[in-house]
Formats: sequence, C-alpha cells, structure tokens
Amino acid sequence: MNNFEFKNPTKIIFGKDTIKKLKEEIPTDAKVLLLYGGGSIKKNGIYNQVKTALANFDVIEFGGISANPEYETLLEALKVIKVQNITYLLAVGGGSVIDGTKFLSAAALYTGNEPWHILSNGVRTEKGMPFGTVLTLPATGSEMNSGAVITRKETKEKLAMGGSGLFPQFSILDPEVVKSIPKRQLANGLTDAFTHVLEQYMTYSVDAKLQDRFAESILQTLIEIAPTILKAEFDYKAASNFMWSCTMALNGLIQKGVPTDWAIHAIGHELTALYGIDHARTLAIITESHYKYNFEAKKEKLAQYGERVWNINEGSIDEKANAAIEKTTAFFKSLGINTKLSDYINDYEGTAEEIAKRFTNRGWLGLGEHQSLSPEKVKQVVKMAY
Amino acid sequence: MNNFEFKNPTKIIFGKDTIKKLKEEIPTDAKVLLLYGGGSIKKNGIYNQVKTALANFDVIEFGGISANPEYETLLEALKVIKVQNITYLLAVGGGSVIDGTKFLSAAALYTGNEPWHILSNGVRTEKGMPFGTVLTLPATGSEMNSGAVITRKETKEKLAMGGSGLFPQFSILDPEVVKSIPKRQLANGLTDAFTHVLEQYMTYSVDAKLQDRFAESILQTLIEIAPTILKAEFDYKAASNFMWSCTMALNGLIQKGVPTDWAIHAIGHELTALYGIDHARTLAIITESHYKYNFEAKKEKLAQYGERVWNINEGSIDEKANAAIEKTTAFFKSLGINTKLSDYINDYEGTAEEIAKRFTNRGWLGLGEHQSLSPEKVKQVVKMAY
Repeated sequence: MNNFEFKNPTKIIFGKDTIKKLKEEIPTDAKVLLLYGGGSIKKNGIYNQVKTALANFDVIEFGGISANPEYETLLEALKVIKVQNITYLLAVGGGSVIDGTKFLSAAALYTGNEPWHILSNGVRTEKGMPFGTVLTLPATGSEMNSGAVITRKETKEKLAMGGSGLFPQFSILDPEVVKSIPKRQLANGLTDAFTHVLEQYMTYSVDAKLQDRFAESILQTLIEIAPTILKAEFDYKAASNFMWSCTMALNGLIQKGVPTDWAIHAIGHELTALYGIDHARTLAIITESHYKYNFEAKKEKLAQYGERVWNINEGSIDEKANAAIEKTTAFFKSLGINTKLSDYINDYEGTAEEIAKRFTNRGWLGLGEHQSLSPEKVKQVVKMAY
Repeated sequence: MNNFEFKNPTKIIFGKDTIKKLKEEIPTDAKVLLLYGGGSIKKNGIYNQVKTALANFDVIEFGGISANPEYETLLEALKVIKVQNITYLLAVGGGSVIDGTKFLSAAALYTGNEPWHILSNGVRTEKGMPFGTVLTLPATGSEMNSGAVITRKETKEKLAMGGSGLFPQFSILDPEVVKSIPKRQLANGLTDAFTHVLEQYMTYSVDAKLQDRFAESILQTLIEIAPTILKAEFDYKAASNFMWSCTMALNGLIQKGVPTDWAIHAIGHELTALYGIDHARTLAIITESHYKYNFEAKKEKLAQYGERVWNINEGSIDEKANAAIEKTTAFFKSLGINTKLSDYINDYEGTAEEIAKRFTNRGWLGLGEHQSLSPEKVKQVVKMAY
C-alpha cells in the first residue's frame, strides 16, 4: 500500500424526506445564492421543497447552469455573488451544478485578475466560499469531494480544478429524487460511477486488499441494481444503493494508498469538448480500447476484476482479463450506452490526432498510473475506439 | 437502507515514516500534553520519533494510561491540563490511550461539577479540547471515531461516551509500529476489529448492499492477513492492510444506514470490568453464544456471511448459518483466542446473573438491533458462554 493522506469533512444527510433539513445546515444570517440547472427541479418538486426549507432565509436564485458547466455562464453568477454580497452557495442539481458551484466558491474568494487561471494554472483552493448541495442526480460524486471540471466554450477546453477548501459543507442525498430522472441520465450516472471506480482500481497491485475489495463492492452493487434502476417503476431501495454507490465511487476513499489511472477521463473530456457527447458516454467509448491497448500493464488486475466482479473463474490470466473487458462493454451496452465513437458522430477522422495534439500542447506527455501513456499512445487508443 | 447522517472530519496520515509529519499538524503556539501508556513507546523507538518531531513545541508528558483507561488516572491528567494551561492533547498509543485522551478532551472543557457525569449521564461532547493521535496498536478504530470507553475501578464500571466534538483532528498511522507489538496484542487487535464489523453487520437486511459488501470486505481482509500478522517476521504489506482494516472497521462508515447490534460489546465490557479479561477476548467469548441464542433473528445474515466471507455454498440457510458460526469460532481459535469463559476463569458461577442484574439496574432492558435482548436473555447468552 502506498503512503496516503485522507480527510473528507463533508456531512452527508442521506434518506427519504431529508431536504427539509437544509435549514439546520445553513447559517441563519447567510445571504444565499441558490444555483440550479435547466429548471427540471421546478417540475419535479425539489425546488418547492428547497424553497419551503429556506422560507426564513435571504435567498437569491441563479438558474441555467448547463451540463459541462460553462465558464461564461459562471462568470454571470460570479457577478451576482459580488453585487449581492452573497455569503453562502447552495447547489441544487447534479454534478454539473455542483461543479459550477465549486468554481464559484473558489472564484468568489480568488484574488487574481482572471478567474480562468484557477483552471489553466492549476490553482489549488484552500479556502472557498462555504457551500452545501442538494443532489438531484447520482453520478459524479461531486457532492462529497473537492474537485470540479469546468468547460470554456470559446476555446473548447474542459479542465479540472480542486483543493481542500472545496468540499461541500453538507450534501443532502434523498433517493426519492431518482424517481423523476430520465432513463438516459440514469444510464449515464451508472456508467459514470462505474468508470470512476475502474479508474481508481484498474492499474497494478500494491497489495491494498481493502481498497481493491471496496472498489469491487461498488462495481458489484452497480451491476446488481442497474436493471432495477432502468425499469419504469421507481424502486426506493435500488435508488438508495445507486445514490450511495455513486458517492462512494468518488469521495476519495478508494483511491487512497493505490495508483490511479484517469486516462479514460482525460481523453473522454476531449470528446465532450469537441463534440458535446455526454460525459459518461465518452468514458464508455474509451474504456475498452484503453484496456486493450494497455493490456499487458493491466491484465493482472483485469483478471482479478473478472474473477471477483464477473465470476469468471475459468482460463488463464489473459483469458480472464479479456473476458472481463468483454463483460464491461456488454454492461455498458445493457444500459443502452454505445461504446464506439462512430456510434455518436459520423465525421470522426482526425479526432485521435487532434486530441494527441492538445495533450502535447498542454504538456500532458504521460498519462495513466505509470505516466507512460504518451500523446502518440493516446492517439492509438482513440483510433481503436472509432 | 435506513436514513443516516455521516460526517468524519479526522485527517488520516498513513504510511511509512509519517510520524515526523506531527509537526505540521499541531499549532506552533500550542502547549501540548503528550499522553501515553505503560512506556513501551520508549522501548520501540516511537517516543523518540515523536519527541524529535515535536522538538520545537512546548510539551509536557503524562504516561501510565493503562488498558481499559481508568477514571482515577485520567483525573490526574486532567489536573495537569488545568494547572499547566494545556491547549492541545496528543495521544501516542492504542485505543486505551486514545480513549483516555478523548475523555480528557471532553472533561477539559466540561462545565459540570463531576467529570464522571459525562459517562454516567451520557453527556454528548459537541466541543472538546483539540487533539491528535499517533496510533501504536491497530485494533479499536478510536483513531478515526468520536467514541471512547472509560473504566472506573472503584465501582467496577465500564461506560461509553462520545460526541461530534471528539474526533481526532489528525491520526498518524505508520504500519511500521506493528513490528514491535507482542503477538498476544496482535491477536487481540484482529479479534477486536473483526467483532466490530460483526456488530454492525450481523443483524437483519435492510438491502444496504454497499454497507454489507464493505463489511464483508473488511472481514475477508482480516481473515486473509491474520496468519501473516501472527508470524514471527514482520510484513509491511500485511501490517498496512491490518492497520487500515482496523480503522475502517469502526470509523462510522459501515454502520450508516443499517441496524447495529453491539450486545456482544455490552456484555463483553462487563466481563472485563468483573474479571479483567482482555477486551477482545471477552468479545470472542460472547460471539458464538450470542449468535446461537439469537439464531432465528440473525440466520439470514449469518448465511450470507457464510457464503460471501467463508465460501460456504452448500446447504440450507440454517446449515450455512451454523457453519458460519463454527468458522468464526475456529478463526478466533486460530489466533490463539479461547472462546469460553471457563477458559479464562475458574469461578464463573453467578456471572450471568450478576451481568443481568447490572443491566437491569442500569435500565438496559433491551439490547441488540431489535432492542429485544432483555437482561433475562442476556443471562442465557452468558450461561451458554461458560
């Protein structure tokens, strides 16, 4: 096991009918900016629950934060924060709204000239404006971590940021919200959480037995509940397991003491930035070719995953590893998620070269757990995903 | 899954050569009380590492905190805190030293007349004197939770306390400390952690799939590493897995959203209070008879545990559940831990009645996940453990 440090101070409030607890978590004298997305919360009743809980608070609203939250939109929200002397942020939404709120938390107290530098220069935020979240879409884990990913339309860039000051003070996770989520987004959420775990697990062994088993536990649970989540009828028990699995998939715990990969995400982000493909779907596109291209380096762990998660008990290491890759692709397809770039866009020629060029220009010369996935290799991985 | 709240702000610093990081965690202007136990840290080099790290701090020492930390001793330490105007506590030890330090953290800021009331009246501590820990014995999980158990010799009482203000600010977990721990204490630590998990898992299903699997992950890991931990040669990898498993066994995570039992601990504490039997061994004494006596209520989960942890795949639910109990007893015995009260004391007649009487007097009329284990039933459980 590698040395590590772990601290996660976010308070989780989990369960049925918990949105009303909002009022106990936000300072009574706060001036709150309530941030949300495209307005679905006004149709599914969550907005009303939040407003009722905050009846005695001074609240201003900012809606319209899109998927892959955009810098330009967030700058508008930042103006509101400054003009209105906001002291507390409340994200009501999925990973995009929460990520956008994290950017605002950082930018509100940032003393530099240009907030974009937080992203382009990798500024770590040790202290941000305090914020909490009401999660409306299980997927990203942003509700219990200190990272965010922000997109800049004008330059087609999608970059990550974070820092110990960007943990939510609290996150309310009411599985009832799953009831009104469209199936397409549920499939995305399952895929996103599944891939988060893979990125922190499918590397090489450092004999971190508990981290491996926790990762496998999340994968097994997602596989087990996926069919129920995608059924027409709502199932509270399955929704609870889905929601908690997504949070645990990326709250920092399973990555402690082990090598992590994250190449699938790095490449996937470019596919979203270039073509607007849903984040989760970009991950499904890259996973198979990434594991096939880097087979030798990952096959031991792939075989362990095959045995423990997919009950593949026959065959050599290579056979088990290959079967595990096939099972993974089949799992994504069972969710209705296609796994080739050509399933999403017709004009994909040149994509691999473009992504390789971007990574070269950014100085990302070695991705993955061995920092050995060069832009040239990234190009091959992307080509295999056409 | 049941509703739950979860927050654990302790910073874990894990790995080789990490004790020196102490100096980055304690405020430089702190007046530190360094608390430790019987002095083994002076023989195994940990004391020197701590003192070196704290070379530039104002430090006073208080040694002699015993296993099952005693109220009388802790009152002496409390005097030192008050007379010396201590502002920060540092526990260097195992669960007993850390538990004692938690009591001091609470008592130092307690405004009542009699610090014992924190225990006897169940006072929850929302704010204590800040403290950190250097863990020297993996077992109790106290390094990452907010609970403590304190003993009062004069009344032969052993009571629990806690509160959100009693999380360590940081805990340093260097697996190298395992090297110098006597085998008897290592066996106790394995048993203690194993039983912690059982108490949070061996109840009834609320379909909390991830919590179940995380619990099973810890049990599997403890079983896997136990033989290596008890070998003469030190194995850093096994020690790392041991240490992290003990912490995760009782840092609050696996008990969230599920019913918990804790009857084994409640009864076990009495055996320690009455006869001075090692805490972990009292748990091993009670486990088998508790599960046999409450077989009907627990057999579904016992069978699941048998299947997933012990690979018992043949037989009915009852057969699997019984086989799982047998495996558990055999595991304790493989560690050199005897599982009957008569293995430890000769004059055990009347023990069951005495414990039942104490529970009745304390108003503990229904223990366990169903609050249905009455003093009369406790008496039967203890008798079965003779």
